[in-house]
Amino acid sequence: MRCRPLLLGHVGALRAIAAECRIAVELAPAADAEAGFAQAPDAPVPVLELECVQPGDPPGKPAAAFGFAAVEAVLRGGELCLRERADLLLTPPIHKESMHMARYPYEGQTEILGQLCGSRRYGMLACNGALRVLVATRHEALRDALARLDVAMVAKQIRIAHEAARELLAIEAPRIVLAGLNPHAGEGGAFGDEERRILEPAIRSAGEQWNFETAGPAVPDVVFREGLDGRWDVVIALYHDQAFLPLKMLPRETGFTLFVGGAILRISPTHGAAYDIARSGKADLAPLRHAFDRGLELAERRATAAAGGGAT
Amino acid sequence: MRCRPLLLGHVGALRAIAAECRIAVELAPAADAEAGFAQAPDAPVPVLELECVQPGDPPGKPAAAFGFAAVEAVLRGGELCLRERADLLLTPPIHKESMHMARYPYEGQTEILGQLCGSRRYGMLACNGALRVLVATRHEALRDALARLDVAMVAKQIRIAHEAARELLAIEAPRIVLAGLNPHAGEGGAFGDEERRILEPAIRSAGEQWNFETAGPAVPDVVFREGLDGRWDVVIALYHDQAFLPLKMLPRETGFTLFVGGAILRISPTHGAAYDIARSGKADLAPLRHAFDRGLELAERRATAAAGGGAT
Repeated sequence: MRCRPLLLGHVGALRAIAAECRIAVELAPAADAEAGFAQAPDAPVPVLELECVQPGDPPGKPAAAFGFAAVEAVLRGGELCLRERADLLLTPPIHKESMHMARYPYEGQTEILGQLCGSRRYGMLACNGALRVLVATRHEALRDALARLDVAMVAKQIRIAHEAARELLAIEAPRIVLAGLNPHAGEGGAFGDEERRILEPAIRSAGEQWNFETAGPAVPDVVFREGLDGRWDVVIALYHDQAFLPLKMLPRETGFTLFVGGAILRISPTHGAAYDIARSGKADLAPLRHAFDRGLELAERRATAAAGGGAT
Repeated sequence: MRCRPLLLGHVGALRAIAAECRIAVELAPAADAEAGFAQAPDAPVPVLELECVQPGDPPGKPAAAFGFAAVEAVLRGGELCLRERADLLLTPPIHKESMHMARYPYEGQTEILGQLCGSRRYGMLACNGALRVLVATRHEALRDALARLDVAMVAKQIRIAHEAARELLAIEAPRIVLAGLNPHAGEGGAFGDEERRILEPAIRSAGEQWNFETAGPAVPDVVFREGLDGRWDVVIALYHDQAFLPLKMLPRETGFTLFVGGAILRISPTHGAAYDIARSGKADLAPLRHAFDRGLELAERRATAAAGGGAT
């Protein structure tokens, strides 16, 4: 057994779903997280009961009750990680409309966890295989994303990337690279000046302020491939599609995201909530299973690094 | 034998290179293209001698003589295709510095062939597997590429894509899609207005003017993957990296480009001239061989379509 699991949910709902989808699993409510984690490996899987009301809504349609349950589960899981009761939080996707029907203002799980951590700089690493991408700007017009780039903002992204690599991925001397903005990274100023005006100064600034060594600005259509080939620990992307155009070419089953910018190790598959096949038993488990495996590896690596650090 | 080949070059140089690299091939000068193409399959490979002086420069360094030879070979090959003496032009990469040392003003092979055709709208399809991408803008700053987008310009790219698919790829009812500009193609105007202000009117305009049906504007980080999966015949990209970020994630050996916008069927691998391993015999033939195979398929498909068209 590679881990001691604890489910966050409503044990009644989980049992009903398992029966409907013919999943042979025994579940038992846990008095609290400690009791749950203390279960013997052959005991029923412990479930920490959520405090919100068990949703009675029909599956497959957004509902406030689903939003309440999902956000509470993420918050309580994050809380357990923050208090070091848990090593890893594995989350399935949240349906954003259900979350908004429950009047939560978050954009997604990254914001839930960022606020829970009280972090002033957090974000998401989008990963597939050896490629890990930190996205400097998120859901906004390309033109607006370009207008928002400045030295301080890019330097902050560089800092997030370095801190995430050290603290979360337990990489001592991370190889981090900043993607350029223009074709061929501007080819020495021939196509655009953002590399010289913003990106190079941001790399210098992060070096001077926090002693972070960062490569780049790199040729965009080369650096993501290099990341996939294992040459970089984190590639920093400057706009949403610079990250996701290359990432979405990779197999769907191996895509996952990591929360960064706080002490919580949270991993999730990249796909959506797939309400259209909710409770049908047709969902492909491969992406969640893959995220689980990668999450366990990271948790183990972090524990080893922490133990090594304590021994010296 | 799938084709009757004709080499364009200096027979003396080609023989010396073949001997140095231990390539067992018999070459013979051809009096003209017709005589060359008329050779029996077991005869030596015919070479149409270039008129420029055979370069005496050391290999591996840019030189005007290499530029003269390369451009003459492309021009004469293009000429043979234009006059329907040849069905396919297969070109290795040209070294741009050699070309510029020979005082040619072209950006690359696309411009050489575009001007040879006297075409007012030409371009390049960048392909890998089933993914074929027409790039609306080329080597310029991202900010400038965005500023240049307007309805007429995008409609013209749509036209190039449709004409290329019909005439060059011999696809009768091509499935052509225009990529959006913003994340999630603007999500209904939430992130940017270029989809509504420029891209949708351009699609309508191409439909009204030339009766071309075009899908989109499509979610950028989804549509290139769909192209790879065979759902589209051509994806139109709006800026250099929108095309090359996804394309460069695919295997190097299967990447090739096609000239579009004229009657010349020209195919080339996507890699560069690799002067660092010139005449060492170390070059990986796989990309050129792959481009050759795809080119032969396209030439055969075009010939079949032309024959079918003539019979009805």
